[in-house]
Amino acid sequence: MTEIEKKVYLDNSATTRVDREVAEVMMRVMTEDYGNPSSLHRMGLNAEKELSLARKQVARVFGAADDEIIFTSGGTESDNMAILGAYQAKKRESNRIITTKIEHPAVLETIKKLEKEGAEVVYIDVDENSRLDMDALKDEASKGVALISIMAVNNETGALMPLCLVDEVKGNALLHCDAVQALGKEDITSLPGDLISVSGHKIHGPKGIGALKIKKEINIPAFITGGGQEKGRRSGTENLPGIIGFGLAAEKAASDLEENREIMKACRNRLKGHLESGLADIVFNSPEEGTPAILNVSFLGTKGEVILHTLEQKGIYVSTGSACSSKKKEGSHVLTAMGLSHDRIEGAIRFSFSKNNTLEEMDYVADCVKDAVDSFRRLGSFR
Amino acid sequence: MTEIEKKVYLDNSATTRVDREVAEVMMRVMTEDYGNPSSLHRMGLNAEKELSLARKQVARVFGAADDEIIFTSGGTESDNMAILGAYQAKKRESNRIITTKIEHPAVLETIKKLEKEGAEVVYIDVDENSRLDMDALKDEASKGVALISIMAVNNETGALMPLCLVDEVKGNALLHCDAVQALGKEDITSLPGDLISVSGHKIHGPKGIGALKIKKEINIPAFITGGGQEKGRRSGTENLPGIIGFGLAAEKAASDLEENREIMKACRNRLKGHLESGLADIVFNSPEEGTPAILNVSFLGTKGEVILHTLEQKGIYVSTGSACSSKKKEGSHVLTAMGLSHDRIEGAIRFSFSKNNTLEEMDYVADCVKDAVDSFRRLGSFR
Repeated sequence: MTEIEKKVYLDNSATTRVDREVAEVMMRVMTEDYGNPSSLHRMGLNAEKELSLARKQVARVFGAADDEIIFTSGGTESDNMAILGAYQAKKRESNRIITTKIEHPAVLETIKKLEKEGAEVVYIDVDENSRLDMDALKDEASKGVALISIMAVNNETGALMPLCLVDEVKGNALLHCDAVQALGKEDITSLPGDLISVSGHKIHGPKGIGALKIKKEINIPAFITGGGQEKGRRSGTENLPGIIGFGLAAEKAASDLEENREIMKACRNRLKGHLESGLADIVFNSPEEGTPAILNVSFLGTKGEVILHTLEQKGIYVSTGSACSSKKKEGSHVLTAMGLSHDRIEGAIRFSFSKNNTLEEMDYVADCVKDAVDSFRRLGSFR
Repeated sequence: MTEIEKKVYLDNSATTRVDREVAEVMMRVMTEDYGNPSSLHRMGLNAEKELSLARKQVARVFGAADDEIIFTSGGTESDNMAILGAYQAKKRESNRIITTKIEHPAVLETIKKLEKEGAEVVYIDVDENSRLDMDALKDEASKGVALISIMAVNNETGALMPLCLVDEVKGNALLHCDAVQALGKEDITSLPGDLISVSGHKIHGPKGIGALKIKKEINIPAFITGGGQEKGRRSGTENLPGIIGFGLAAEKAASDLEENREIMKACRNRLKGHLESGLADIVFNSPEEGTPAILNVSFLGTKGEVILHTLEQKGIYVSTGSACSSKKKEGSHVLTAMGLSHDRIEGAIRFSFSKNNTLEEMDYVADCVKDAVDSFRRLGSFR
């Protein structure tokens, strides 16, 4: 294989390749079975049946009831709806919100909006190993809170957050969990949370589609209003191709979960082993017990962005942080919150895996990374 | 052609068939060029380039600058963002909103939300011919208004609203126009409006994607917050397959506009002629000078819903009103606002056309409609 042909995609936490099977079913729905689920005629009825099936598929991933699932335009809309809606529902009881310093911007920015409108927000710390300060959280929760929003899996390091412990101490607060990076990588059937956000495009499903699980007994106002679709909870013509594609991708992700985890774990361990043995002055920012989908490594004395561009010359696609924050000037807010040194933040690379990766790819990637890091360290001028 | 094979889709105002060319480009983006536009590497860069091209394609349809276009998850989100954002931006100057009684629920329900929060809303009347009470509007506008929201083309009757006249009298108000039913049917390059909503799936593009044109000098807050995509105006991983599909569909819709209008006009006139000559006691609810895409007809002494189901037995798909409101118990709010009689509302059918319809289909449809109406009128028991 020549270099130009080679393509090793290790930015699966940013987005994934859509499975051909998923894309094909979407193609059918777009060009043949294109009815509007709200139409009264048979094409509308058929569309509605397909919609129900997809809802079942997604509900099953959560171990939830069908009517606990509403479809949104993606993880970010799910987070917006959950946070704004939960706060709206509970603000008479308390104006306090608890979250962490390492949440996704879809959570942090939305909470900031509420902060400007008078919410009192507590940002819980994490340590260098991504461990949440549970004592502080417990203490703050005991004071009465409207909403606690904590992610299941951190998108930069792969650290798992202790949602079960949080659930125990949440009191009367609603618990929202951004599980965008957990779906397809961790079993989320027993993930606690009154509201849980997930997204299609992180699990080889389409972009532009997501879901919010809302526990049956929880009532939050609609975020997008209009024609009353999704039982009035999310208006707008249903994105049926997206929903059906997401349903299929979710079903596959759930049924192949263990198998896919084994592949990701094997890739992660192989790459990690190669890097450990082949390079000095590197630090792993991903906790050992984190999700197998992510390996975040700091190559001290380098610049992640330069390594990234050197690797892309070899057909290898990685990230310096999350895709969302990659173009911002400041360093990663996650690694900063972990209290890592400037050098460690600047030299960080996120490798993120999927079921489509192979061990052979990891051998190739390790070689290329070693070359890139060695060369950067030799030629100080790059700095 | 046997009956079972025959399929005449005349519910194009509810949704349209995605063009194969559009679906194919989406397939490529989903399975091959699936980078996240926010990623720093080449796949991200290529995705960003495709995003820019699609933005140009959509901007051109409006005769707008590229940076006046932001992509949303559809017409409903565009309407929500425009209305909530415009009101937020102007509410210090005035708490008044002007709209009409025949807007889409995405507009009406969102305005109702603001009404509950203290906005004073004026709902302008229309007459039996869908003519807006411009005197009332002018009078109300002169009193100072934050926002005027009026659609370009009514989704049930096809009536065109006098946006240019509204623009002349709007004063300091922001003008929002829901142009979802105008795109691909009318030339919208000179449509006035500080904010204009459009949607992909009404023009043979994908569902789950839309756009909001925001005039350069207008600043409204983001509706969905997070990673800061769309220059901070609409967060969430860009739905690139949807955006690219929408861009292509918009470009085709604009370049083939006159041709497509001729097809729709010919179909509409042919069907109208057949119905006029073949059936007594029918009334056309669509104004003669309305969009060629819609023909709304009342078959007096019948029930639209029964006619609809009789027609679907013949492979003909029509609507009784808009898809959004079709499952609600109340009659059409549009026909009600026009002051039509109960009989006229109950017997209404909306035929909505696209470039894919043929004159031959209209002959077949007219025959089937005549049979259905005659049979209903003969067998009073159906009522």
